[in-house]
Amino acid sequence: MKKLQIKFIAVFILIAMLLSLNLSNISSAAINSSSSNVKNVILLIPDGMSVSATTIARYMLNGNEDGSNKLVMDQYAMGLITTTWANGPITDSAPAGTAYAIGHKSLNGSLGIDANKTPKATILEAAQLEGKAVGLIATSEFMHATPAAFSSHEMKRSNYATIAEQILNQDIDVLLGTGASKVDSKELDILAMAKSNAFEIVSSKTEMQKSNAKKLWGNFSSITGGTDNLSYDIDRKTDEEPSLSEMTEKAIDVLNKNKSGFFLMVEGSKIDWAAHANDTIGIISDVLAFDEAFKVALDFAKKDGNTIVIAVTDHGNSGISIGSYDLIGYDSAPFSILSPLKGATKTAEGAMSLLKEDKSNISEVLKAYGINHDGYTPADITSKDRDTYNNAKVNDLITQFKNEPTASNLIKIMNQKAYIGYTTGGHTGEDVPVYIYAPKKVDKTPLIGVNENTDVAKFIADAMNLDLEKATQKLFIDVTNRTGAKLDGNVLTLNENGKTLVIKANQSIAKLNDKDVSLNGEIAVLIDGKFYIPQSALNLLKSTSK
Amino acid sequence: MKKLQIKFIAVFILIAMLLSLNLSNISSAAINSSSSNVKNVILLIPDGMSVSATTIARYMLNGNEDGSNKLVMDQYAMGLITTTWANGPITDSAPAGTAYAIGHKSLNGSLGIDANKTPKATILEAAQLEGKAVGLIATSEFMHATPAAFSSHEMKRSNYATIAEQILNQDIDVLLGTGASKVDSKELDILAMAKSNAFEIVSSKTEMQKSNAKKLWGNFSSITGGTDNLSYDIDRKTDEEPSLSEMTEKAIDVLNKNKSGFFLMVEGSKIDWAAHANDTIGIISDVLAFDEAFKVALDFAKKDGNTIVIAVTDHGNSGISIGSYDLIGYDSAPFSILSPLKGATKTAEGAMSLLKEDKSNISEVLKAYGINHDGYTPADITSKDRDTYNNAKVNDLITQFKNEPTASNLIKIMNQKAYIGYTTGGHTGEDVPVYIYAPKKVDKTPLIGVNENTDVAKFIADAMNLDLEKATQKLFIDVTNRTGAKLDGNVLTLNENGKTLVIKANQSIAKLNDKDVSLNGEIAVLIDGKFYIPQSALNLLKSTSK
Repeated sequence: MKKLQIKFIAVFILIAMLLSLNLSNISSAAINSSSSNVKNVILLIPDGMSVSATTIARYMLNGNEDGSNKLVMDQYAMGLITTTWANGPITDSAPAGTAYAIGHKSLNGSLGIDANKTPKATILEAAQLEGKAVGLIATSEFMHATPAAFSSHEMKRSNYATIAEQILNQDIDVLLGTGASKVDSKELDILAMAKSNAFEIVSSKTEMQKSNAKKLWGNFSSITGGTDNLSYDIDRKTDEEPSLSEMTEKAIDVLNKNKSGFFLMVEGSKIDWAAHANDTIGIISDVLAFDEAFKVALDFAKKDGNTIVIAVTDHGNSGISIGSYDLIGYDSAPFSILSPLKGATKTAEGAMSLLKEDKSNISEVLKAYGINHDGYTPADITSKDRDTYNNAKVNDLITQFKNEPTASNLIKIMNQKAYIGYTTGGHTGEDVPVYIYAPKKVDKTPLIGVNENTDVAKFIADAMNLDLEKATQKLFIDVTNRTGAKLDGNVLTLNENGKTLVIKANQSIAKLNDKDVSLNGEIAVLIDGKFYIPQSALNLLKSTSK
Repeated sequence: MKKLQIKFIAVFILIAMLLSLNLSNISSAAINSSSSNVKNVILLIPDGMSVSATTIARYMLNGNEDGSNKLVMDQYAMGLITTTWANGPITDSAPAGTAYAIGHKSLNGSLGIDANKTPKATILEAAQLEGKAVGLIATSEFMHATPAAFSSHEMKRSNYATIAEQILNQDIDVLLGTGASKVDSKELDILAMAKSNAFEIVSSKTEMQKSNAKKLWGNFSSITGGTDNLSYDIDRKTDEEPSLSEMTEKAIDVLNKNKSGFFLMVEGSKIDWAAHANDTIGIISDVLAFDEAFKVALDFAKKDGNTIVIAVTDHGNSGISIGSYDLIGYDSAPFSILSPLKGATKTAEGAMSLLKEDKSNISEVLKAYGINHDGYTPADITSKDRDTYNNAKVNDLITQFKNEPTASNLIKIMNQKAYIGYTTGGHTGEDVPVYIYAPKKVDKTPLIGVNENTDVAKFIADAMNLDLEKATQKLFIDVTNRTGAKLDGNVLTLNENGKTLVIKANQSIAKLNDKDVSLNGEIAVLIDGKFYIPQSALNLLKSTSK
């Protein structure tokens, strides 16, 4: 009996030990898988930001001649992303943004559709289906390629009326940017449509910051001097125009009220524009402004503990480099070769806006762009080969600018002075770095290696536990050839079970037997002759449905 | 009694359970800390490899028009590395290699010393102190900046005799490259010195592969046609010249016989040279060859389980980009804009070597470089804007080449055809990606973020549990002003405790009271007027020492 008891106890101990080990394994595995999702994702896109652009911007940080202080985002660099579109090596922002939004390669100029011209749910739309709040920020018009890729489905990025209509009907919670004047109000009255979609409209930084709206549209068109895009950060009227970081802060405030979480896309739109112009000052200005926005997102994420922040450009632009054919003795050149870049107080666009009609203030324009002289006098040309050679070239460019004072000629002077090289005024095809902050519970090595741009969408969807395929099946049902369907222009009529549904493309409202029914931000789209409606619209026609 | 027994057993169970939990925690923590080190590190440096160079090379992989197949190293891209030297934004390979070797920023042209001109132990030397085997591979001469940075200490990278002497005296186990003819044998008889240092010398691929030497010098100078550097991989005589991957394989074979482990540095030296020449074909050739060498290292590491493989270039070069000012409609350009690059069978250097003295075979030279025509005829110029514009420019360049058949003019044709942009024939200052394979026991996120080039040395030292500071204290003691010391030219005499030590710079042998004593690969160096000797030499003078 005693022996049996002891045996029993010994076995019990063994089982207990095994069990305790196994349980701890099982429970930790369970914790890992269930809590590796996050509530919120903030995706920041510095459009057209080449690696050299970040390296150069870093040198401009205060007290940082040797570039050893880091940008806020630097700490989170992780792996590379390829930027190809479906059919070529150099992408436009439309298929590039689309790859990040839907996880499929797309066509040149196309938004929210795959290479077969089929609409696919975006991360933003999939997040909405899960009850999350969503927001879009840009320093450009809100229907520009990158924000539009997340919130519209359209073959041509230039169809602003279509895109604006889709975006405003999507039930987006926060939309900050410009663009109201970019569509003829006879074609589409954007302001009226925004109001009818319950947006509170703010049109200045102060109004934005004061607003208590749950659904906020920052339309800063009126304060941007007719350009209808926000100024480069260095040119910004800081009392009127919000910075990218101020918009990001406000958007997070509004979106974070949703208990189911949120998805926010923040675009530093004009890094790309400055790169197209080869304006190094504009690039620096907006990379630094982007980094401040990244910091706002990061600070929130660290405090929140349930948010991923990801920053990734959509493509390189301009082939910018530190060093050019004219830099004699590149390997002995001191850090100070870059110091001319520190003298500018305006971008080329900003400096040129100062030019008087009679061109009497050329020196002032030069000075605003950091060129504190009208040309080197022979005494200024030192005996060093590098300087002698370069100063002579700078002199020629200053003369050229005086004869023909254009932004492009102004830009050439600074790039010559600071030995910044460019290969193109267009986009480029190299891989780009991705920056990720994730709370500890998430795999610490997401997107290590060289991944496709489409993998970014997949990573974000996985992180928020979104199913993009299922979302597509819910949102985009091709009803073009369905029995009882008739397409007339951009209006579809569908007769089924004795009911009639009439729905217009780009709208989130349907007429069911002549009565308006809201589709709650789910929209109908017409792409390449095919009409797609959400399942929720189709459900209205079910015989059991009232 | 029974109750007591049961209580005892219950307590025992509790203790057993707690113990089992605690023990498993303790043991896993102990395993993590003690086994996170590795035995071997293979550092591969693709000199001057810009990000665009890898993106372009990827397109050249077989059956990979859309660039979606990946290079072997792609999977391991992780974070970015800054490439500055002590005093400027664009580094030469000497301070760049030095940063990776010693973990300190250095001066332009300097090897193995910090910015104060003080010699510091390299990873290679510190590994030797721990009894590890060490090797260096380059496709250039072995005293070129990158291999020299790991194995010599010298202000001027051009002092080849000094550098060669130091390297050959360092007791390196494997040295594969070229360079025997780069120093006048009257100044330094490199071959004799190698023999006196017990190297087995092999001078062809076959000899190398057959060798059973424990200490191997591959001196491939005699088969490189007078250039005394190995051919670009695409130009290589594959039966005579070893590829970078074949050299890597051999080196690992030899080094891995050491039970204490090894450190191996593998340089793809001529990616940089091709970039200086803006020769896209040369860049592609040697990036692909580098990737094959990476694969050899990776395959070994995966099998071995105790090896880290790290690949990182030392700086960008040439500002290469996919896309140039001449690419009209970059965003609609198909993948095939890059296909001209696939037609070349030789680099520009290789193609030019075919040119007959009477220049009668221009077409053959063009063809070898992938230009299968002598110029577009009007019928070839299609109606598409992009092609029309570009073909006209290509025609002009072909005419230019026919008038003046130089490598540089040949290169321009291909870059125009494939829309590859360049900003310089020199190095560039942007951050570069680092690629790391580490066994699971090592932290999975080393060098994430933007790190300094000096952090790479620290990472490698930590990984192998090397103390670079302690190694420096052991190897480089400044004895210039020591009592009893007298420096005469590059010979130091030291009288101490009635003993006399005479030691020459760059040597690993000393005379103690007129008798030769080996310093076992530890060398004396003379830098900026200061003489440094290893502690082991100083120990010979101790009163207790025989």
